[in-house]
This record gives sequence, C-alpha cells and structure tokens, in this order.
Amino acid sequence: MKRIFDPVHRFIELEDGEARLLDLPQLQRLRRLRQLGLAYLAFPSAEHSRFTHALGALAIGSRAFDSIARHGASFFSDSRQVAYQRRLVRAALLLHDVGHGPFSHACEAVLGVRHEDRTKELLALPDLRAALEALDVEPDDILALVLGDPRTRYPALRELVSGPNLDADRMDYLQRDAYFTGVVSGRFDVEQLLESLRLYERDGNLVLGIDSRGVVALESFVTARYMMFASVYFHHTTRVFEHILHEVLQELWPNPRALDAIDEFLRWDDFRVLNELGSVKTEAAQALRERVRVYVLAAEFNAESDLRAFEACERSLRERYGPENVWSDEQSQVMHRLPLVADASRPTVWVGTPAGLVDARVASDLIAKLSGNAYWRKLFVRRTAVDVAEARKLCALMVASLQRA
Amino acid sequence: MKRIFDPVHRFIELEDGEARLLDLPQLQRLRRLRQLGLAYLAFPSAEHSRFTHALGALAIGSRAFDSIARHGASFFSDSRQVAYQRRLVRAALLLHDVGHGPFSHACEAVLGVRHEDRTKELLALPDLRAALEALDVEPDDILALVLGDPRTRYPALRELVSGPNLDADRMDYLQRDAYFTGVVSGRFDVEQLLESLRLYERDGNLVLGIDSRGVVALESFVTARYMMFASVYFHHTTRVFEHILHEVLQELWPNPRALDAIDEFLRWDDFRVLNELGSVKTEAAQALRERVRVYVLAAEFNAESDLRAFEACERSLRERYGPENVWSDEQSQVMHRLPLVADASRPTVWVGTPAGLVDARVASDLIAKLSGNAYWRKLFVRRTAVDVAEARKLCALMVASLQRA
Amino acid sequence: MKRIFDPVHRFIELEDGEARLLDLPQLQRLRRLRQLGLAYLAFPSAEHSRFTHALGALAIGSRAFDSIARHGASFFSDSRQVAYQRRLVRAALLLHDVGHGPFSHACEAVLGVRHEDRTKELLALPDLRAALEALDVEPDDILALVLGDPRTRYPALRELVSGPNLDADRMDYLQRDAYFTGVVSGRFDVEQLLESLRLYERDGNLVLGIDSRGVVALESFVTARYMMFASVYFHHTTRVFEHILHEVLQELWPNPRALDAIDEFLRWDDFRVLNELGSVKTEAAQALRERVRVYVLAAEFNAESDLRAFEACERSLRERYGPENVWSDEQSQVMHRLPLVADASRPTVWVGTPAGLVDARVASDLIAKLSGNAYWRKLFVRRTAVDVAEARKLCALMVASLQRA
Amino acid sequence: MKRIFDPVHRFIELEDGEARLLDLPQLQRLRRLRQLGLAYLAFPSAEHSRFTHALGALAIGSRAFDSIARHGASFFSDSRQVAYQRRLVRAALLLHDVGHGPFSHACEAVLGVRHEDRTKELLALPDLRAALEALDVEPDDILALVLGDPRTRYPALRELVSGPNLDADRMDYLQRDAYFTGVVSGRFDVEQLLESLRLYERDGNLVLGIDSRGVVALESFVTARYMMFASVYFHHTTRVFEHILHEVLQELWPNPRALDAIDEFLRWDDFRVLNELGSVKTEAAQALRERVRVYVLAAEFNAESDLRAFEACERSLRERYGPENVWSDEQSQVMHRLPLVADASRPTVWVGTPAGLVDARVASDLIAKLSGNAYWRKLFVRRTAVDVAEARKLCALMVASLQRA
Repeated sequence: MKRIFDPVHRFIELEDGEARLLDLPQLQRLRRLRQLGLAYLAFPSAEHSRFTHALGALAIGSRAFDSIARHGASFFSDSRQVAYQRRLVRAALLLHDVGHGPFSHACEAVLGVRHEDRTKELLALPDLRAALEALDVEPDDILALVLGDPRTRYPALRELVSGPNLDADRMDYLQRDAYFTGVVSGRFDVEQLLESLRLYERDGNLVLGIDSRGVVALESFVTARYMMFASVYFHHTTRVFEHILHEVLQELWPNPRALDAIDEFLRWDDFRVLNELGSVKTEAAQALRERVRVYVLAAEFNAESDLRAFEACERSLRERYGPENVWSDEQSQVMHRLPLVADASRPTVWVGTPAGLVDARVASDLIAKLSGNAYWRKLFVRRTAVDVAEARKLCALMVASLQRA
Repeated sequence: MKRIFDPVHRFIELEDGEARLLDLPQLQRLRRLRQLGLAYLAFPSAEHSRFTHALGALAIGSRAFDSIARHGASFFSDSRQVAYQRRLVRAALLLHDVGHGPFSHACEAVLGVRHEDRTKELLALPDLRAALEALDVEPDDILALVLGDPRTRYPALRELVSGPNLDADRMDYLQRDAYFTGVVSGRFDVEQLLESLRLYERDGNLVLGIDSRGVVALESFVTARYMMFASVYFHHTTRVFEHILHEVLQELWPNPRALDAIDEFLRWDDFRVLNELGSVKTEAAQALRERVRVYVLAAEFNAESDLRAFEACERSLRERYGPENVWSDEQSQVMHRLPLVADASRPTVWVGTPAGLVDARVASDLIAKLSGNAYWRKLFVRRTAVDVAEARKLCALMVASLQRA
Repeated sequence: MKRIFDPVHRFIELEDGEARLLDLPQLQRLRRLRQLGLAYLAFPSAEHSRFTHALGALAIGSRAFDSIARHGASFFSDSRQVAYQRRLVRAALLLHDVGHGPFSHACEAVLGVRHEDRTKELLALPDLRAALEALDVEPDDILALVLGDPRTRYPALRELVSGPNLDADRMDYLQRDAYFTGVVSGRFDVEQLLESLRLYERDGNLVLGIDSRGVVALESFVTARYMMFASVYFHHTTRVFEHILHEVLQELWPNPRALDAIDEFLRWDDFRVLNELGSVKTEAAQALRERVRVYVLAAEFNAESDLRAFEACERSLRERYGPENVWSDEQSQVMHRLPLVADASRPTVWVGTPAGLVDARVASDLIAKLSGNAYWRKLFVRRTAVDVAEARKLCALMVASLQRA
Repeated sequence: MKRIFDPVHRFIELEDGEARLLDLPQLQRLRRLRQLGLAYLAFPSAEHSRFTHALGALAIGSRAFDSIARHGASFFSDSRQVAYQRRLVRAALLLHDVGHGPFSHACEAVLGVRHEDRTKELLALPDLRAALEALDVEPDDILALVLGDPRTRYPALRELVSGPNLDADRMDYLQRDAYFTGVVSGRFDVEQLLESLRLYERDGNLVLGIDSRGVVALESFVTARYMMFASVYFHHTTRVFEHILHEVLQELWPNPRALDAIDEFLRWDDFRVLNELGSVKTEAAQALRERVRVYVLAAEFNAESDLRAFEACERSLRERYGPENVWSDEQSQVMHRLPLVADASRPTVWVGTPAGLVDARVASDLIAKLSGNAYWRKLFVRRTAVDVAEARKLCALMVASLQRA
C-alpha cells in the first residue's frame, strides 16, 4: 500500500501493483505533460501535470464506483465482480491520458495521430501489459473503457471512465483546474454528485445515472464546466498561444511521420518542446517561450446572436489590415457537449425518480435551457502590424451600427 | 479604528463612529437574529447571524464602492463627494437589516408590518440619529438607500445597497451562506465581479453596471444564487419548519398589534422566540423547538412542465388523506427575481461593451436562457396521520401515468 | 441512514438509531449551547453550537476508530467486537457534552455541579437509556468513556473519547473553532494524525498512541491547540465578558440549588440566559447583552518570566485606582495540559518506533521543549472609573523599570 | 496596469513598467524553475514555479510595505519617498530569485557560483538595467536589497526583502508551498502578521519589527516554517533524489566553468535538465527522470538526543553493507535559522511593547523555547544492494539497546 498526498483529494491510496504501474516510465512521463497545456500563460499557477490528474481521477473514480456499488449491489453477481470492476476503473483512470503528446490537441493536429490510437499502442507494450496482468485486470477491458468502446462488457464503467457526461475524468479536472488556477466558479457539489450516482437498467442495458436528489448537484457540475471553459480554457491569452503553438510544432516536427513510432513519440513531452524552442529562431518559437503576445484581442463575441457582428468585423479587419494580420478564433464546433449534448435527440443523463427514469432535461429546467451550443468567437490582430486601438474602435463602431439597425 | 475578524472577508475595519453605531443595542440585537432563519434545521451549521452579515455587507460594499470610484472618478464632483458617498454606503449596509424581526418573513406575515417600515421607525430613534450625525451622514440619505427609494439622490448607490441585481447585500450573503452551510456551489467569482463594477450614464441617469470583461463573473453570481435557493433556501426540511413557524408565531403573538410599538418589537429576537416555545405546549411549538418533523415530503416538482403533475398529485393526496393532512408548498411567486427578472421588458444589468451599453441578456446567452421563473413545488403529508410510503407511491404512479400519456 | 452536511467534515452519516438519539430533546438542546460561549463577542462569527461539534466529534471519532481498527485488527477478538466498539465510540461522542449548562464553565462555577455529574444523571433518564439500548450499546460503557472512568473495559477508547491527548473531541473542536472564527493557525495535519493512530500494548494495558511517521502531525496538533488558546479562547475581550458573566449568572440564579433537578437544569441554555438578561437591570447584565466593555485591558503578560512585572503592575493599579476597579486575570492553572502535561513524570503520547514505544517528548524535540505551562496574565481596569491611557502608561513604566534593573 | 490571478493572493496588479520587467526572458525563465525543486517526487502536485513565487512575493511584500508605511509615516520624509521605496520593494521581490539555476542549491554546489553573484551579473545586463530605469528605481538600491547588503540605504526594506526573519520571500513561499502541496500546517496567521509589522528605531538604526499584538501571529509564522521543513522540504523521498541529483548534475556538467558566462547559464533550467537526462544513460539519471528510488530509508533521527543512536546505526550499516551502499543525510548545519537564530547573542525579531522594544524570545516563551537547532538525520541504504528489512531491523535493535542502556 502506498499513500500519496494530493491537495484536492487528500491521501490517495494505491495498491502495490498500482504503484508499480504508476512507476513505469510511460506513466512518469505524464509529469512532463501539463494538464492545461498553455493556460499557464494566462493563469501563471496552472502548472499542474496530467500525472496529478491521473491520480486524482483514480481517487474520485474509486469513490464514484463505491457509491454505485453500494446502492446497486444487485447489479453485481458477487463480491469478486465488485472487486474486479473496481480494479478495472482504477487502472483505466490511471491510464486514460497516457496516449497524449505534448500540448495534446495541437500535437494531434500536427502529427495526425489521435491520442486514442497512441493509447492502444501503449497498452500493447510488454511492460504495461505485464503491469496490468500483475494487477489481475484484462488489458482489453481497460482499453475498452479508456477508448469508450461501445462493445465493452462494462458499459456503465465506460461512462464513468470516458463519459460523455458523468465521468471521473471531468469530476477531477474541474476541481483540479479550479484549485490550481484559483477560479472558484469551477467548483461544484462533488459530495452530493458522488452520493447520487446510480446504476440503472434501461432497455436491457446498464446505464450510469443519478438519483433525483442529485439534480442540483448535476446542475452545479454542468455550470462549473461552462464556467471553466468561459474563464480558463478559452481565455483569449491561452487561445493566442495555442494558435502560435500549432505553427511552432510544425516547425519543430517538419516530418510528422518521424514520430509515428511509439518509442519516438514517448520521447516528447511539454518540457522538451519548451526546451527545444530555445534553439528555434523563428518569431513564433520565441513568442511561445518568452510569452510575447504576437496577437492582441480586437473584439470578442460570446452570444449566439453575435454571429452577424462577428462576421462583419472579421471582414472589416481583414480588409483594413490584410488577412495575414488578422486571426479569427471560432470555438463553437468543439463545444458540442457543452453544457450537455447539442443533439436534442440523444439522451443526456438519466435521472431516477419515483416515477421512473427521465432525461435530465426533463428533471431540470436549468439543464433544458442550457442545452445547445455555446459560442466563443474572438478576433485578434497582429500586434506589430496593426494599430490595436484603431482596430478595436473599428469593431466597436461596426457592432454599434448593427445594433442600431 | 476598530478591526474585526471575519472568516469570509478577513479583517474588517471600522471607523470609530461606525464602531459606536454598531455598539448600539438595536444593532447588537442582530446577533440574535439568524441570517438563514430555520435553515439550521436542515444544515446544522447555518447558525450565523444577521450581525455578521451586516459587517460582511459593509466590507464587500466598500470594495465595490472603491472599484466604481476608481474607474468612474468623473462621476464624482470631488474627493469629498467620494468620501461622503463611501460613508453613506457603509452605514446603509450596516443598517440594512435592522428592521427585521425574528425569522424575518414569517414575522412580517404574522405581524403585518414590513421590515422597511420598521427600519424607517428605527432610523428615527434619537440614539440612531445621533450616531449617524456623528458619522457625518444624512439619515435621510441612508434611509433612501436602505429602502430602495427611487427618489434618492444616489441611484447607483441604491442599487449597490438594495439591488435588485448588483447589491452588496447579496454579494455577502451568498458567500456567507455558502461558507456556513459548506455548500460550495454558492460561491462565485467575487474578485472579478467587484473589479468589473462600473458607473454608467444611461438616458441621463447614473446606473450601476459591469464592464463586459465581467460577464462570466456575473453569470457565476446568477447561478450561485440559483444554486443556493435550490440547495439551501428551499430545502424541504427548512420549508416544513417555516410552515410550522407561521402557526407558532400566531400562537405566540395572538395580538399582533401589541408589537407595533418599536420598543416592544425590538424586544423580540430568534432566541426569545425559541426560548418561549419551551413553555408553549402545542404540538407545533414543540416540533419547532425539538426538530420534530410534523410533515414529510411526499413528492417534489421543480420543472416548469411539472405543473399538471403537481396539481394531480395534490388533488389525489387531499382526497385520500384529507386536506388537513397535506401541505402543498409552491414557491414560484416569491421567485420573481430568479435568476434575474421575469418581466422581460425591464432591464437586467447594464453591460458596458466597446459598442456601448447592452442588457446582460444580450451580452450573455446563459443569462438570457435563465431569465424567467424557477419553480419549487413540494407536497408534504402529516407524518402522524399518513402512511408516507403509500403517499409517495401514489404520487409516483400518478406522475408515471401522466408521463406515459 | 441519515446524512447531514457539515462544512468541516462534509457528509456525516448516521444510523437510524443514532438519528433517533440525536432527535431527543436533550440532544437538540445542544443547538442552544454555543461551542465557544462568549467568544462571539470577540470573533463575531463564532456562533456555532455544541450540537454541530457533537456531530463533528462523532464523524472524526469514527475515522479515528477505523484507523486503529484497520492497523490493529489483532486487538479485537472478532468483527462483532469491532462493530460494538465503533457504535460505542460514536454514541459516546454524540453524548459527550450533553451535561453542559449555558456557558459551561461559568455555569459549573456558579451552580457548583460538574457537567460530568449532570451527564451521569442524563444518561440515566429513561428516554436516553431506551435510545441507547435501541442502539445496542451498554449505557454504562458509554458513561465510562464520556466520564473518562479509569475502570472502563475500553481504556484506549476512553482516550479517544475523553483524552487527555488524542481525543476526537479536540480533533473536532480545533478544526471547527478554526473554521468558524477563521483563525487559520488552529488547523493541523488531521489526515496524517488520523492515519497514524495506533493501539499499543504497554505493561499489559491497551493504550492509544501514534506511529512514528505521525510525529510531525502530532506536533501540528499540539501547536494548533496552543494557537487557539492564545488567539481565541483567551482573547482579552472574551475574558472580560466571561468575568462579567459569572456575576450575571449569580444574579440570575440567586439560588443555585433550584437548578439541581435535572429537568429544571435542562430548561436552561445560552439563548434563555441571553434572553432573560433583557429584563435584568444590572449594569453587568446589560453589558453582556449589548456588548458594553466594562473592563479594558491595561497590560498583558504572556511569558513565564513576566510574573514579577505582572505582580508589580497589579499592585500599582490596585493602589492607584482601588481594587474594585482592577481585575486581574490569571490563566496558568487551567493550562495544566498545555501543550501537553506539565507533570513531567506522567507519559504524554506513546509513539511507536522500530525500536519500541517511546514518549512523544523523546520522539520530538518540539514537544519536549513545549512541555510545561503556558501563561496568560492580563490586567484590566474598569472603564468608567479609570483613565485607561494613564493606567497603561503606569504599567509600561513599571515594566520598563524592571527590565532595566 | 496589468492584473494577474493567483490562487494564493487573488488578483495581483502590476504597473506597466513592472509588467515589462516581468516580460523579459530572464524573468520568464523563472517559469521553468520549480519553487520546490524535486519535492514533486514526494508531493506530486508541488509543481509550482519560481515565477509564481516571485509574483506572490511582490504581492505580499506590497501589503507588508503598506502596513509599515501606514503605521510609520514619520519614518518617511515625504510621499515621494514612500512611493519610491514601494517601487523598490516590489521590483526587488520580483527579481529576488532571478539568479537561481536549475534546482538551486544543487546547481550552486556543482557549479561553484552563488546565486547572489549571478543576480549581480544579471542586474548588470543592459535590458534589465533599462527596465529598472524605466521603473524609476536605482539598480544599485535593488541589488542591495536582494543581496541583503548591510550597507544599503534602506536597512528595514532589506529585512523585508531578504530576511532573515520577517521577509516577504518567506511569507509567500510558506503559504504557496502549503497551498500547492496541500500541507495545511504550513499556513500561518498572515493577516495579523502583516497588520503588526512596524518600523522601529533601535540604536539609531531603522529596524523591522512587530507590534506586541502580533506575537501569536509571529509564533504561527515560526512554527509554520518548522512544519514545512519537517513535512516537505526534508521529506525523505525528496532528500534521496536531491542526493542523486548532485551526482547527475556533475555528469551533465563535467566542466562547470562552461556555465560561468551568464548567457550560457541562463540557457539552463529545470526542464532542460530533466529533458537532457533522457539521453544520459547512467543509473542516476534514469532514476531521477523516472523516479526510481535508488536509496531507501533505513532509519531516521529527528531529536537532538538521537546523535549517539544515529552514529551507532550509521557505523553498523556501513560495516554490514559497505560505505558505498549507505547514505547518511544530516541536515543540522543548514538549519541555523530554524526556527529563528541559533546564535543566542544575536537579536531575533524586535517586538514593540508599551515598555519598549524587546526581543521576541523575551516576548514569547514559545519562541524562546524553540530557539536553537532542529535536526533531521536519515540513514538510507541502496535498494539494489541491501536487504532493506534487515537493515531496518539492525537499526531498530541498535536503538533499542541504546535506550535500555
């Protein structure tokens, strides 16, 4: 038994086999991948790693599992099944981010390999397989949970591990990112949410849901996620550097195929990228390393109704300053699960009421109203080429004239 | 200068004159009025008083004032005006709850006198007047802020003191109630909200608003309020005892007019009520004092669409158990400002954008979507007269049959 | 199963029988006894009750018990013994303060009956006995733990319940008082302390101790207690009102014997005392109710070496202003367990090391150095009769002249 | 004006000139130096950088300066002096760690150049000089504060910046390290300590001290520091890797003189070291990068009286396993300022009392008792070469036999 201290979850206990899994270089590497990528350039203290998040996900996932097992004993054939599935959830959460490269999404975009595929390769490595066998869990069961494979034997556990709505991954990262940035509005009523988790049977399948007494906790979970996107994940400073990062990684990795081999891929982490930037002489690389803001915010549009204003301003700025000096950042497409699903035909979260299971949009007006997309559109101009005050004024006048119209 | 320590705002500093005001018996009495009335029967640690809230409102109101004065210097004729208005806001917030009786709303309902009228009388008392004069503030200016008088000379300060949307009263109580109950989802991004407060001119009038960079903080403020209502203020246990309380106060004060005189009124506080219950022998009085739950929740309905189900269940329960054994608690009417206004024609919060002032519902999709009423309807049955399990089942079947229909 | 939310320990779960015990009027009465008595006159938010403390002590006591049971399985004959002792510890902690009167120590001093004796009488009341029997615990076993009876069958549990060094009572109240006053230095490393608790056998007896990895946590526990005494419990404002309280209670209870009967005694609580002060017309009663500071601090002496200065100043003040206008507050005698024992011959806390059990003073230099008395001596003068500035100067000159000598 | 959010101090405001200073590559480099070096190998979340600490020190140093300026107006010739000294303190705190290399002490030991000398060189660089001049502060004044030069024109500010007892450096790092590790016992009563800071004149010199009402806060500050050393800074896991690090840096930098040039030196940071370890093939390098514990704790000795036991065990282990397989870690020498000074003849902290200035050891029994050294001695054995259980037993028997003697 090993005990690790964490400011979010206090002591986290690991079985010896779990500790050995965690000690593998492939997992220790998570210490060199930051949970929030470049967000530290807007929130300096957001320097926490995917390693602490993996531990935290295991910790909260175990509490979540214990809650559903306690309330849903009849869904388990015997205590060995409970123990097996608990080991499974814990190992899967420890491993769920292991396939990420430096700066995650940017890395995927540049290299063209999804982190899920990397994870698959990683879990096939001999030392990882051996560690999982020593833990007495099936690597394939793990893989199905981590990849969210619909054919898993454990569909409710898959939801607990990889979502899309009630996953331990998010339960940890919202709390952790709130703690390390200091943004209090990212906190939610985790105690009540955990206590309300339930297994339900729905059309012959096992699903993860909540008891109706947990509806307010679920609402707090959903709004906390929204708040963190609005405050932190899409902060304009973060977005600027993520934009630059893409360019920089292309310079750094002129031949993406060179990182196809898993061994080569694993040699890369955030620290190495930041380090190698020191010798890349392009403006973008220096900007990223020394936090030089190449682009400055000219205008932002966060309401659905702003689309026309956004497009008009974008056009004006491009005409006035040239398209190469304007960067337009639209975030609606990645937001399809915010707050819950946009696709109104798919169920969100099942809520157990005395009258049977209902969708969370039926149980909660707040969730019903918040369903749909959220939009974050930002217009940036290149600082060295554009008179920023003028650009801002140009946008303001455009918006004002549209509002009057 | 006096320094008082508070767990929410750390040190709170009072000028000598403010400390003397606070030392008056009419303000010390606030120590014996609880901020959350009977909520401690559901959240045992919610034992904090209106006294600490008054101090907290002064503390956060001062920070809010300093923020608007710093950003809106041009709205003040000179530094003496700034100093005068600051003294005004502080004194008004210290006094804003001074007219409340024991258990506030229940007391008003039974005695038939609004706390605003009591406040008026209280501020006319010689020692209070003297204390205000010693502070060099006009009692009438104070009164206008506390009562929300539209004819005040200081309309923006009135919003800061008595709302309806950006008041220091709520900024303190949400944080304080969250701290003392432990409900984390009541916390909001207070730092950013304070920093974003602004004075604006709108159609020739001074209004209180926020800079557009504070929109997410405003969203967090609005949802925090919703969360506290849903979790704490309308908790079913609290509601049961508030219901009983009404009956008990009628027993205790058979002649409401006897408390008309302000001196007599001020002799009453929560502690005295709880104490005198010890000698009242009715079931209700004992229930309140010893936390005997006379009513038990049979069903609750929190979505707008539940109205039909609510009414059907109410009818069934009344038929089955007799109307005297069923209590139906509907909270929509008192909710008219939740999350913001229901009346779509009135402005909510003015948001300053580069393109001019816009309503918060324009600036924020979340606020737009959350506008309107929230509903909390609950059906309770009398524990000694009704088979609770049966009553719950009866409601569940009714709801299920309506859902199928 | 009943779940109660607490800001210090989050959800606290009670078995149905425990919930019924808690619902008895004798326990609900704890809601009207404040944990820190009059400290709210110095720290306004210190309004929390013994009721929340009783719940909190149960919560942390359960975790402590689980820790010693997990590490010391061999000390229990079987799982039924574990379950029985756990029930015992929980019930005892729920009941441990039930014999306190209003304002605890002052009440004992005036009425001349120790709270332990009240507890004994209370536990003999039929409804309490019945509730304990329904919980399947022996009332006599409970009594022995609560009273710290050396003849108990469960000596280690007695230490856990009533100390003197590693009790759940203190583990809760330090955290709770720190939370409700906001004094951060009262917090200690509770996670590590709980994890380090152990049962040991020493000269044939079972004792409660800690594993050597918990020494720093124990040091933090000891210094947190010291800090709370220095900052809160002996704050000069609190002490002034406690002094006045004694006088007031004597007025209120001219015949202490009238409260000998347990039924009559139980009719009294803090709220009733504060309420009845409203009709007592003495200066002391009004001072207490309205927080009028009758005495003001003239000088304080917190170091052991100050004894001579203290006595010299006391003499001077009495000579100059008359003994009736000087109140000298010496706190050394009640401090005999601060930080640990003063009596160097008695063991403190047993620490399990690889080399065997050693006393905490051997395992920790810090604890060794802090053993002994702490002193808080304060000189107050009556505000209406004494020129305070002059009195302070007089003391300062006296101290300065002694320092030069 | 630029506002940066920090979880410890909330918003930190920077003047434009300060923001430009912070944007220099030499300061951005602090993002790649961790505040706690290798402590993250024992406390995974201790990943915070010297960059956030520099900001935090500026934040708390400003509050400390404002407190002494408010209470000690007479010590400043005019408001321009106040403004100048405030700028000075802020810039000095922002820069105080700028001369550190990767892993600080280990780097100094291997390269043989003190960080103070690096700082001196850095402050002479043209862009830093220019940034300081733009801030209107004298680089030499900054240097004197940062280096703790006794000839500074501002001796009290020097204490505020570089200690040894009341420095903003420590006020920030204790709070910050407590926050990021989660170790609560590292927190102290910062509000009261700041409020109590004072300037005093002593033998014609200006000194930094505290008002006597801050004595308990000072005690909490001193014990918090002790707790952090005992729990975090000297955690046995941290110490093992610091030991290995020394060896690794020697491999990495076979020619220390190559890093003498400041430009070359600045190219190194924690991230680069960790990155380059990936290609060093020694056991130590891999151990550090992948957290392989080469040494395991066999015994530890934290009390002064343990010296004999420590030496006896050390001797036994060396004899039994060979000196190359035993590492003995003694920390007393670096502890000369813990809790305060060891040298009894030097003053600690001046405390202003009504009777004049006294040393903190006179004002506080706790501080008097804690003066002197603290000892942390640990014996480690090489995991691959030694039977750890046997080694531990050997030490335990040795200690037990000495205790019996």
